[in-house]
Amino acid sequence: MKAYLDCIPCFIRQSLDAAKHATQDFHIHKQVLREVLRLTSDLDLNQNPPKIGQLIHRLVRELTGVKDPYSKVKKQFNTASLKLYPKMRQLIIESDDPLDTAIRLAIAGNIIDFGVNGALQESDIEKAISECLAADFTDEQFNAFRQEINDAKEILYIADNAGEIVFDRLLIEQLPTEIVTAAVRGSPVINDATIEDATNTGLSRIVEVITNGSDAPGTVLESCSEYFRYRFGKADLVIAKGQGNYETLSDVKKNIFFLLKVKCPVIAGSIGCKVGEMILRKTKAFIGEKENARI
Amino acid sequence: MKAYLDCIPCFIRQSLDAAKHATQDFHIHKQVLREVLRLTSDLDLNQNPPKIGQLIHRLVRELTGVKDPYSKVKKQFNTASLKLYPKMRQLIIESDDPLDTAIRLAIAGNIIDFGVNGALQESDIEKAISECLAADFTDEQFNAFRQEINDAKEILYIADNAGEIVFDRLLIEQLPTEIVTAAVRGSPVINDATIEDATNTGLSRIVEVITNGSDAPGTVLESCSEYFRYRFGKADLVIAKGQGNYETLSDVKKNIFFLLKVKCPVIAGSIGCKVGEMILRKTKAFIGEKENARI
Repeated sequence: MKAYLDCIPCFIRQSLDAAKHATQDFHIHKQVLREVLRLTSDLDLNQNPPKIGQLIHRLVRELTGVKDPYSKVKKQFNTASLKLYPKMRQLIIESDDPLDTAIRLAIAGNIIDFGVNGALQESDIEKAISECLAADFTDEQFNAFRQEINDAKEILYIADNAGEIVFDRLLIEQLPTEIVTAAVRGSPVINDATIEDATNTGLSRIVEVITNGSDAPGTVLESCSEYFRYRFGKADLVIAKGQGNYETLSDVKKNIFFLLKVKCPVIAGSIGCKVGEMILRKTKAFIGEKENARI
Repeated sequence: MKAYLDCIPCFIRQSLDAAKHATQDFHIHKQVLREVLRLTSDLDLNQNPPKIGQLIHRLVRELTGVKDPYSKVKKQFNTASLKLYPKMRQLIIESDDPLDTAIRLAIAGNIIDFGVNGALQESDIEKAISECLAADFTDEQFNAFRQEINDAKEILYIADNAGEIVFDRLLIEQLPTEIVTAAVRGSPVINDATIEDATNTGLSRIVEVITNGSDAPGTVLESCSEYFRYRFGKADLVIAKGQGNYETLSDVKKNIFFLLKVKCPVIAGSIGCKVGEMILRKTKAFIGEKENARI
């Protein structure tokens, strides 16, 4: 999906948040703000939001001289989520429908998104868990998802954020792990998960983890490594977590299921739902072999 | 108070909101956004937020060619508030402490602020009324306020927004109206009340209403008319409603009581309270005759 004008004020706030995470120097915060305002005033808006985010966060890193502004936050939320892991795993195992519970928890973890909420607290996670366990899905495609998992030969699970990746691990544990590969970002951007987070949260011990080779807060395919694109092409089922992956992959002709919590009005408008809702939905951009046969 | 860097993303959003209120033309929205980004990238931040707001909204009016983008919204919220007026007046008259109830309602009306919330619905007003009637004040200075009203020879009540002005009327009716003058903005900016709103909501029938001669969303004294400044100087008690008036008058050495609902983290930080709280507070910038005598 393309960026909306409404994305711009949000990017400005995001860049200031990132600068504050990188340094306490007010003069650098101001410089970042001014340069990002300048950059966005001339920006091509016919790009998807993570492409713009990629440019902005490169600028923030350049101006602050800090390669990973959210390093501390990522560690903090990995640790907080790992603390919840045993309780959540128990909840899944003991539930009537473990896959359903694991999907709900994976979506709950999507609350850990510093691109949307720079003031997120650890206490917000438990609140999100309770809500996601109780809430109804919007246009839920659970049966189709279960069927596709059973039919798949190779699943690519594209993770989103640090901390959240612990919740992804819980869902991945309910999938046929021998055919699952998890993908993380190639290098730091906002609090998006990188290989370090996959290692630190034990995901790498369960499935193969690859990086996408990119520093975009989403899956901008032309910015990803050739190897990632090869693996993306080879997978017959892609599970894409979170808003950034939705924004970059919603128009790609590929068999993708999107799992996310909708956290902004722009995405809500694109999906046709309300802010706060849980989404488990097969992409509309793809017509698979079965669907093709019917036409 | 000076603007904070955090005000800037909010101004960008506000300008886009204003452009959307002015026209449905996407190209004009985009042009407004680009020009406001350019303007703010070079802005002197040592100004109070309404001074910046003044510049930005002048630019929006110039680029859209619409003199009063919030005209419809202002009429809508005047009408909605007038519908609630009889019920609220009854509530005040029948309450144990009419002045306390009227103050709470006046603060509830401060929710009608399109500078902060461009998605405000009429239903939000009744919710704000219930909340303000039940909530505790932060550092409430009710007794001092009552005393000053009794002692005052000339009260200047600086209103904030359209719609809200109906709630101000309820409070003004509890004051000694013969010594009260109400002030509104000199010309349209966001949904701030102008003379038209004072007339349409009946405020002009109760007290003298003057305009401040300015198009700033607050009381930028140097931008106000000479006559307004004269009246401001002459009043021995000023009641200033809302965030914009707080932002512009909090450092002015004058006997001012601020009445507002805190709607943004920057103001909350300046006041030392949480977002959502109700404030009735005497300015800290002023030392009056009595206080002077004690020193």
